[in-house]
This record gives sequence, C-alpha cells and structure tokens, in this order.
Amino acid sequence: MRWVRFEAEQGARHGIVEGDTIQPVSGSPFERWERQGAPVPLAAARLLVPVVPRTFYACGLNYEEHIRAVAEKIGQPPNLPTQPDVGYRANNALIAHGETIVIPSDATERVQYEGELVVVIGRTAKNLSEADALSCVFGYTIGNDVSERSWQKSDRTLWRAKNTDTFKPMGPWIETDVRLPDLVTKIRLNGRELIEFATNNMIFGVERYIATISRYITLHPGDVIWMGTEGETADMRNGDIVEVEISGIGTLRNPVVREGS
Amino acid sequence: MRWVRFEAEQGARHGIVEGDTIQPVSGSPFERWERQGAPVPLAAARLLVPVVPRTFYACGLNYEEHIRAVAEKIGQPPNLPTQPDVGYRANNALIAHGETIVIPSDATERVQYEGELVVVIGRTAKNLSEADALSCVFGYTIGNDVSERSWQKSDRTLWRAKNTDTFKPMGPWIETDVRLPDLVTKIRLNGRELIEFATNNMIFGVERYIATISRYITLHPGDVIWMGTEGETADMRNGDIVEVEISGIGTLRNPVVREGS
Repeated sequence: MRWVRFEAEQGARHGIVEGDTIQPVSGSPFERWERQGAPVPLAAARLLVPVVPRTFYACGLNYEEHIRAVAEKIGQPPNLPTQPDVGYRANNALIAHGETIVIPSDATERVQYEGELVVVIGRTAKNLSEADALSCVFGYTIGNDVSERSWQKSDRTLWRAKNTDTFKPMGPWIETDVRLPDLVTKIRLNGRELIEFATNNMIFGVERYIATISRYITLHPGDVIWMGTEGETADMRNGDIVEVEISGIGTLRNPVVREGS
Repeated sequence: MRWVRFEAEQGARHGIVEGDTIQPVSGSPFERWERQGAPVPLAAARLLVPVVPRTFYACGLNYEEHIRAVAEKIGQPPNLPTQPDVGYRANNALIAHGETIVIPSDATERVQYEGELVVVIGRTAKNLSEADALSCVFGYTIGNDVSERSWQKSDRTLWRAKNTDTFKPMGPWIETDVRLPDLVTKIRLNGRELIEFATNNMIFGVERYIATISRYITLHPGDVIWMGTEGETADMRNGDIVEVEISGIGTLRNPVVREGS
C-alpha cells in the first residue's frame, strides 16, 4: 500500500495511491482511517511531505564508501563507526516531492545530494530486539539529505549544513510493501545517473538501528529514521533537477534554485 | 501571563495561571484561544510539557565556566565557540514538571543536571535582525538538559547521552512577561542550592542566536530554544529531587529514579 499526504480544499489530507489516482481517507494512516470522498488524479495533486515526524532521526555515517568520500572532501581522516549512534535532523527543512531546494546566496558551490532510505515508524515501540525490530515499521519513503560541505566542516554542529530550510526533501509517498534486500537506490542529476547502490548494504541495518535506539528511546508513530547514503556525491547548481529513486518505492524529484539567481 | 498545558478530562488543554487556579482556554496560545470552562485548582492539576515543539533547538556550549567544567569531566580541552552554532534535542525525551527522570540501569553514576532558560517561539520568523529578534518570542520556560557523561564522551552523537527517554524535563509553564537581564537561575539537589548564576550571562544571547538561526531557518510557533547552562554540574542519584528555579518564571522540579532500583 502506498500512502500520500496531499493538499486538498480543506487542507492536508492522507490518501492511498491506486493506479493513477489518490483515494482520500479520513484520519491518518497512523491512527484510524477510512476511505472518504472521490478519488483525485495523482498527476494533478500537490503532494505534501508524507509525514511530519515527532522526532527526526538520521543515521549519518552508515555506508563505507560514503564515509571515505566525505572524509576526503572535508579534509579529515575517515571515521568508520563502531556502534550505531543516531543523529537528528530538523522539521523546518522538510520539503515535499516537487518542491524547490533553495541554496542560500552565501552558500558555497559545494551543496550536495545524499539519497537515503527513510524508515517510517508505525507504532509506539521501546526495547525491541533485532528480531522484532521491523514490527514497529509502518513503511518506507525516500529522503535527500542535502548538505553544504563548507558549513559541515566549519560549524560545531550540522544545523545549517544539513538543516537550512528546503534541505530535507522527503517523499513522494510511504510504501508499506517493501523487502529491504531487494532495494536499489539510483541518484540522477538532470537525468544523468551518477550513482547506484544496494540500499540495504549498510554498516548497521534497519533492524540493528531500531533495536539500539529503542533500548533508550521510545519510538512514536510518524517518527522517521533516515538511513544514510552511499558513495560519492556531487554539487547541485541553480537550475538542476535531482532525483533519488529507490526500486519498489518511487522517485523523489526536486528542482534546485540558488537564492538571488 | 503564565501559560500551562494540563491533563483535563477531554485530554490535554491549555490554560492561564491566575493565582492558585488555572483558567482553561479553548484552542492554543500559539493560535486562537478564548477562556472556556471553570477554573481548576493549580495544585490539583497534572501539568504537561507546556509545548511539544516542531523543532527542538539547544545551544549547548553557551556559558564559559560550564564549557571549562565539562571539558575537564570528559577529558578534552575546552572548546569555546566562536559563532552561535545551534544543536538539537529530541521530543521523545520531554517530561513535565513533577514527572520522574529515569536513569537506565546501564548508565554510569555520572548522570547530571543542566538548568537552562528555554525560549518559546510565538510566530513564524525568518531573517530577523538582532534588534527585532525578540519580536518572535512568545515567552520563556525552564529546561533541565539531563546528561550521561560517559555516553557523551563515547558516542559519535548526543543521542542517548542527552535524549534518553525522560532526560528532558521542561516546564512548569511558559511566562510571557520576562526581562532577560533580571533573571537568576538557581539549581538545587534535595533542597541544597548547588549553583546560582545570572541567566543572561551567555556567550551569545537570545537575540544573537535567533538572528543567526533565522538567517537560514524558519522558526515556527511552538519551537523551543534551550539556551545552555553555566558552571559545574553534579551527579543525580536514585531518590534525588532536582529543582531548576529561574526568578520570575518559576521552578521546575523532578524526582530521579534509577531503573531497577
């Protein structure tokens, strides 16, 4: 099942994608819902971020080639993690599929994409074992962890490097029927494929992260965990179109504009 | 004006503290509201976290003596900030005034308080100057940035050191009538005052932080910014009561329990 959130006349609504249409529902997929109202054409709908999380987790360094590539870019030695420590991103930065990534006028040219699998939590969970970890997962969506590399290097935290407004595209929808080992991530800039990787080829997988986090932290419905990205990234420039595709989930597509261009 | 959020029969409600009573309101102080229903005794009400933020900002290192003290504790050189980089905390960890701080059974003895002024944002704001910064502030509350020092040292991020469930007491209410230069913070453990400091004696003040953040980030109603703490902290043990008082705002009081004790 494929869940979208979209702009309706009455405001934000949830719906189920069925072929070329959205079947609107009352309520939310995380609580109670039922089909309500006439289907609307998917192509005509303005999609919203599929969920605004209560807490927005991000694994950061979770693929080996990416860690080596970023370390080289920021001029520091690679630091392979020995345990699954999770980080955070911020809701202000979220934008939906189709919305514009806006690069601030004082950013350098090194504003780069990071295509990521996003885990969406479906139920309250604490102290899950790795074997039970996936039982709290509602579904999966796609994220682009846009990063300004000079700020990532200069600042004490990742606040503006990764959380500047519009730097967190997420969507287009949440897919509930996913087999993690089958997933392949492809990233395209202006239609040209720049990287392809086995999505599940993580240092610490989804099960391990959920088990580790939930030892100390209660996960809530709607929380999201961004699982990190693999390989090299590249600069995004004014006028570019960036796409992150994960097989079986969909494609997250966003235009890029530089402020003042 | 003093705003509380409390548990009513119908669920969470906002209200205004007037003497020994709470005047309930419909709606929320961040949108529309009006007085609705009979006053309830403040002493009998179960207070809730006064706001669940959309984004939960924390300044971290913002008082000079504290930076030197923590650096010594974790065995690293003090790192005085040269610009106001903000960090994040997580909503799962929030508890209200009176609720229990639960120390996980595998935490060390070095679980410590950090009493902090909390800025509560009242309106959507972007690109504010320092002169205009306070115009987006709704009011102020109090936070206790509970920290497990061994995890703060060992982990790549602050996820469990500072965001373990119950590690973020906030409250008891939001006070809207505050003069920052007049504030004094006092922290007591089991009634004994351990530290007192001029709340506004920050490396970078509220105005500077808001102006810096809002250059890149849209602040939203209900967002909170925890402003950091001063001086030495101390370990909290099973059975302790920790209090953070800020003059003119109130006192945030929480009992401490170790899991399995």
